[in-house]
Amino acid sequence: MNDNSGKMTDSVGIVKTKCFTFANPPDEMMLKCGKKLGPVTLAYETYGALSPEKDNAILIFHALTGDSHAAGYHSEKDSKPGWWDTMVGPGKAFDTNKYFIICSNYLGGCKGTTGPDDINPKTKKKYGLSFPVVTITDMVKVQKKLIDHLKIKKLLAVAGGSMGGMLTLEWLISYPDSTRSAIAIATTSRLSPQAIAFDHVGRNAIISDQNWHNGTYDLDSIPKEGLAIARMIGHITYLSDASMHKKFGRRLQSRDSFGYDISSEFQVENYLKYQGDKFVERFDANTYLYLTKAMDYFDLPSRYGSLTQAFKNISAKTLVISFTSDWLFPPYQSKEIVKAMMNLDKDVSYIEIKSSYGHDAFLLETNHLTKIVKSFLTNLKLNDGK
Amino acid sequence: MNDNSGKMTDSVGIVKTKCFTFANPPDEMMLKCGKKLGPVTLAYETYGALSPEKDNAILIFHALTGDSHAAGYHSEKDSKPGWWDTMVGPGKAFDTNKYFIICSNYLGGCKGTTGPDDINPKTKKKYGLSFPVVTITDMVKVQKKLIDHLKIKKLLAVAGGSMGGMLTLEWLISYPDSTRSAIAIATTSRLSPQAIAFDHVGRNAIISDQNWHNGTYDLDSIPKEGLAIARMIGHITYLSDASMHKKFGRRLQSRDSFGYDISSEFQVENYLKYQGDKFVERFDANTYLYLTKAMDYFDLPSRYGSLTQAFKNISAKTLVISFTSDWLFPPYQSKEIVKAMMNLDKDVSYIEIKSSYGHDAFLLETNHLTKIVKSFLTNLKLNDGK
Repeated sequence: MNDNSGKMTDSVGIVKTKCFTFANPPDEMMLKCGKKLGPVTLAYETYGALSPEKDNAILIFHALTGDSHAAGYHSEKDSKPGWWDTMVGPGKAFDTNKYFIICSNYLGGCKGTTGPDDINPKTKKKYGLSFPVVTITDMVKVQKKLIDHLKIKKLLAVAGGSMGGMLTLEWLISYPDSTRSAIAIATTSRLSPQAIAFDHVGRNAIISDQNWHNGTYDLDSIPKEGLAIARMIGHITYLSDASMHKKFGRRLQSRDSFGYDISSEFQVENYLKYQGDKFVERFDANTYLYLTKAMDYFDLPSRYGSLTQAFKNISAKTLVISFTSDWLFPPYQSKEIVKAMMNLDKDVSYIEIKSSYGHDAFLLETNHLTKIVKSFLTNLKLNDGK
Repeated sequence: MNDNSGKMTDSVGIVKTKCFTFANPPDEMMLKCGKKLGPVTLAYETYGALSPEKDNAILIFHALTGDSHAAGYHSEKDSKPGWWDTMVGPGKAFDTNKYFIICSNYLGGCKGTTGPDDINPKTKKKYGLSFPVVTITDMVKVQKKLIDHLKIKKLLAVAGGSMGGMLTLEWLISYPDSTRSAIAIATTSRLSPQAIAFDHVGRNAIISDQNWHNGTYDLDSIPKEGLAIARMIGHITYLSDASMHKKFGRRLQSRDSFGYDISSEFQVENYLKYQGDKFVERFDANTYLYLTKAMDYFDLPSRYGSLTQAFKNISAKTLVISFTSDWLFPPYQSKEIVKAMMNLDKDVSYIEIKSSYGHDAFLLETNHLTKIVKSFLTNLKLNDGK
C-alpha cells in the first residue's frame, strides 16, 4: 500500500519514456534551414495497445513547454501525472482501452529529444547555439520517422493544442495520406505579431541574462532569471483578464494592507514568481529560444500563397476547437483555418467553447473537450462500419 | 529662418519647464505610507494665459512615462514636441487661446520632480530605494500644492489618460470642490490583476539586472537591459492585436526570407528593441519601479468600500472616454466608473471610441478626442452664461 494507490485507478499507470535514434551519419537528416543534423534521438511514450491492424494509433503533439510524458506516472512517487493525463487514459477522451496513443518530445527539445542542450557527437561539446534552427516542418518530419519506425501506415488521428495544434496542421499538409483525422485545438495557421512580440521579449530576457554566455552556460549557472522572466510573460498570455480576476483578483499575499515597499505583495505576483522558479528547474533556456523561434516562423498562408492553397491536398476529417477568452490564439485565428478548409469543401468541424480560462483552457476545459473528442473519434469508428 | 519654422505655426512654441519647491524641513510632507518627505520640488509647464478671474485653468496629468512637457518645444532644435502636442495648443482641443494649461511631473518621477534618482539632502546621496513608496493620492496632493501656489481656487478641468486618468479620478475625490469638470480617458478605478502581472514582470526584469545593485546604480552603468525589457512589455500592452497586424504584420526587417538563426528578424522585434533602447536613455529604472507600484496600489472601490461610495462627494461634471481595442484598460473598466457615478445621479458622460490602436489610442485618436473634448469644454463655458 502506498499513498498514491488511489491515483492510478483511471490512469495509464506507470509509464516509461522510450527512445528512437535515426539519421546516423552519414545519413543525416536535411533540415528546412539547409543544414544537416544527425544522429537524432527522439524521446516518446505510448499508452494503450496497437491493434493488429495498426489502425488505432493517435499521435498527440505537446505545447511549447510540454514533453513526451502526456499521461501516467514515471514512478509511484511522482506527485503529478503527465501533462494531458486528464484527457489520456482508460475511459478518457483519448481512451487507452481503444486507442494506441503516442506522444514525442520535439526536435530542439530538452526532454530526451536531440536539442541544443545535448552533446554534439562531432565536437563532444554541447550544441548550444551551433544547433541548427529548426522549424515546425522539421519537427513533424522527425515524428513521421517515428511513426514509420512503429510501422504505422496511417494514423487514426493527430491531435494537439497551442504549438501542438501547429504540428497537427503541419502534419495534415506534409503527410496528407498518413492520418484519417486531425484535432487542432487553440491554435493558429500563423503566429500573430503580438505573439511574436511576447516571444521576442522572452528571448531577449534570456539573452540579456549575464549567465547565458551566448548559449554556452553550464548547468550549475544557468540563465535562470532571464528564463523565469520569459516564463512569467508566457503565463500572463496563457491566462485571461477574467481568469486572473477569478484566480487572484487584487488579493494580497499575506498582509491585510499594503506594505508600502517595492517588494511583491499581490497574490498574482507570487503566482508568477512560483511559476518562473519552478520552470527554470525543468526547462532549458536555449530550447526556449529554439522552440519559440520555430513558432514565430510558422506561417502557412505565406508559405503556400494562401491558407486555402495550403490545405488543398489534405484529406483528413478535421476538428478545430477554440476558446472564447483565448487572446493568444484567439477564435478568429481558428476560424481562418476553418474557412479555408470550407472553401475547399474539406470535411471540417468547428467548435468554439465558451470559457474564461484563456489559452490554458485547452488544458483545463476537460469536460467539454472529453465529450467533443470522444464523439469525434467514435464517429470515425462508426464510419468504418459503413 | 530655421528648419523648424513651420512646425511652430499651431504650436505653443518654445516653452520652459518651471520648478516649485515646498515642504522644506521641518514642514515636510506627510505621505500615505506614514513617512515624511521634504523638500519636494515639482517640475511643471504652463501654456496659454491665466485669466484675471483665474477661472480658465486646466490641469493635465501625464501617463506612466510622460512628464511635464505636454506641448511645444524646449528649443528650436527639438525634433519632437511635448507628449500631447496634438491636443494642447492654439485652436486645439485644449485651446491655449482660451485656457491656461498646467502639466506637472509626478512625485517619484525622474523629469524634474523629486524622485528616487534625486539626492537626499539629508544624506547627500541618491535616494534610491530609501525613497518612500508614493501613491496616486500623494501625487495628487503634491499637485494640489502647485495649484494653491498658482493661486487657483477652482480648476476649469482636470484631465488625463491612462495613469493620468487615475490622477483625474483621485483629484475628483480628494478635492471635489477644486475643479468644475474632469476628463478621464482610457483609465480604471483599480488596476486589474493582469496589469499588475505585467508590471510585476517589468519590475522583476529591472531588479534582476546585474547593474541594478539594489537601486544604487550609477548613471554610467544603469540597469538598461532590465529597463528595456520592462519597456518592451509595456509597449505590447499599449498596442492591440489589430494595430500590430496593421503596423508590422509578419513582415521581416531586411530579408525576404527567414535567416534561420536565433537573431531578431521580424519588424515587430526591431520596433520593440528600438523602443527599449530609446527609453533607457530618458527614463530612470527606480522611477519605473515606484510609479508602477503606485498604479498597482490604485484601487478606489476597495479604499472606499465601493466605487459608488468613492464618488459620493464629487461635484464635477465628468467625461469618461474609452477605446474599443484597449485591452490594458478595457472599456468595461470605464463603464464601471460611469455606472457608479450614474448610481449617484452625478453629471457624467461616456463615450466609447471605436479604434484599433489599443491603449495608445488616447495619444493617437486626435480627431475624435479633439471634437469630444472641445465640445465638452465649450459646453462648460456655455453653462456659465446661463
